[in-house]
Amino acid sequence: MAGGTKRLPRAVREQQMLDAAVKVFSENGYREASMDSIAAEAEISKPMLYLYYGSKDELFSACIERESTRFIEAMSVGFDPSLRQREQAYTVVKEFLRFVDEHRQSWKVLYRVAVGTQTFSHFVSDSRKRVTEMVTELIRTGTTVEGARDIDFELTAVALVGAGEAVADRITEGDVDLETATDLLVGITWRGLKGVGTADVGVD
Amino acid sequence: MAGGTKRLPRAVREQQMLDAAVKVFSENGYREASMDSIAAEAEISKPMLYLYYGSKDELFSACIERESTRFIEAMSVGFDPSLRQREQAYTVVKEFLRFVDEHRQSWKVLYRVAVGTQTFSHFVSDSRKRVTEMVTELIRTGTTVEGARDIDFELTAVALVGAGEAVADRITEGDVDLETATDLLVGITWRGLKGVGTADVGVD
Repeated sequence: MAGGTKRLPRAVREQQMLDAAVKVFSENGYREASMDSIAAEAEISKPMLYLYYGSKDELFSACIERESTRFIEAMSVGFDPSLRQREQAYTVVKEFLRFVDEHRQSWKVLYRVAVGTQTFSHFVSDSRKRVTEMVTELIRTGTTVEGARDIDFELTAVALVGAGEAVADRITEGDVDLETATDLLVGITWRGLKGVGTADVGVD
Repeated sequence: MAGGTKRLPRAVREQQMLDAAVKVFSENGYREASMDSIAAEAEISKPMLYLYYGSKDELFSACIERESTRFIEAMSVGFDPSLRQREQAYTVVKEFLRFVDEHRQSWKVLYRVAVGTQTFSHFVSDSRKRVTEMVTELIRTGTTVEGARDIDFELTAVALVGAGEAVADRITEGDVDLETATDLLVGITWRGLKGVGTADVGVD
C-alpha cells in the first residue's frame, strides 16, 4: 500500500480507484485491463482494490455506472425547453461535444469498451436510449407537419445521435477542434448535405 | 465428428465453420463465445475445429476478415460515379442498409463485437475508414462551394457514416423496415431536420 493514503475517507478512495480504473479500461479495453495495473495506477495494493471491488466485473460495473450518470447529467443540462428548437439543438450538440472533449476516458469506456461486452453493453444501450428519447422530443416539439409519423421522429433522432457519436469519436482522437465539430454537426442536423461549407452549396 | 461430413472439401468446411462462428459470436459476444459451442453449431468435433483454426482468436480473426471483405464489396457496388450525386447517395444508403438487413450477423460481429475488443477493433476502424473516404469523395465531388475545407467534407462524412451505423443497428433489431429507414436516412443526408416528414416542415 502506498504510504500516506491509509487514512483517506472511503468515498474519496473509491473515487480514486474509479479514476484509475476508467483510465486503464479506456486505454486497454476490458479484456486486457488487469486488476494489477489498476491497483498500480491507483497507487494501492491489489488486496485493497479487491476489498473495495470484489472482482474486475464489479469494478468495471461501478465505472460504467458513474460515467453514464455523469454523461446523462451533462446531456440533461443541454435540453432547455425554454429555448427555441434551433437554439436548443445547438446547445445540446455543444454540451454533448464539450462533455466528450473534457471526459475523453468516460466516452471511451462507455462507447468503445462497455459497448463491446456482453455483460455491460446494456448500460450503453440504456444511456443511448435516454439521449435518443430526449432528441426525439426535441424534434417532435418543433415540427408541425401532419404527415410525420412517430417512427420518422424516432429514426431521425437515432440517426442524429449516431452522427453525434461518430463525431465524438473523432474528438477523442484529438484531430478535430470542438468549435469546428459543433458547427458542422449543427449544420448537418439542420440542413443535411446542403449545410456543408455554407448554406448554399452546389448540390441539386 | 458428425457422420457424413468427412469428405467435404476443405474450402467448403472452412466456410461452414465460419458461418457457425459468426452466428455464435454475433449472439454471445467474443468473451462468452466458446469453441465448444461453435463446434456444436458447425456439427463438428472440437479437435476438428482446432485443426482448422488454432485458437478462438484465430477463428474470430478469420470471421472478421471474411465479413469485412463482404461488407466493403457490397458498399463498393453502391458507389457508382456515373450517377448524379443525389442518386449516388440514395444508392449507397440503399445498398448499405440492404446489406445490413440481409447480413445481420455480419453487421453485429463487426460493429458490435469486434469493435469492443482491443485486438480486433482495428478491422472495424479500417473498414469504417474506407467507407468514410468513399463518402467524403462523394460529398466533395458534388459540392462546389469555395469556402468548404477538407475537414468539413471529412467530418460531414464521419457524421453521415455514424448516422448510417445507428440506423443499421435499428434494422438488425428488426423493428424498422428497410424502405422507411432508407428514405429517412437519405432525407436527413439531404436536408437535415428540414427533411423530417416532408421537405417543408415547420422548423425555422
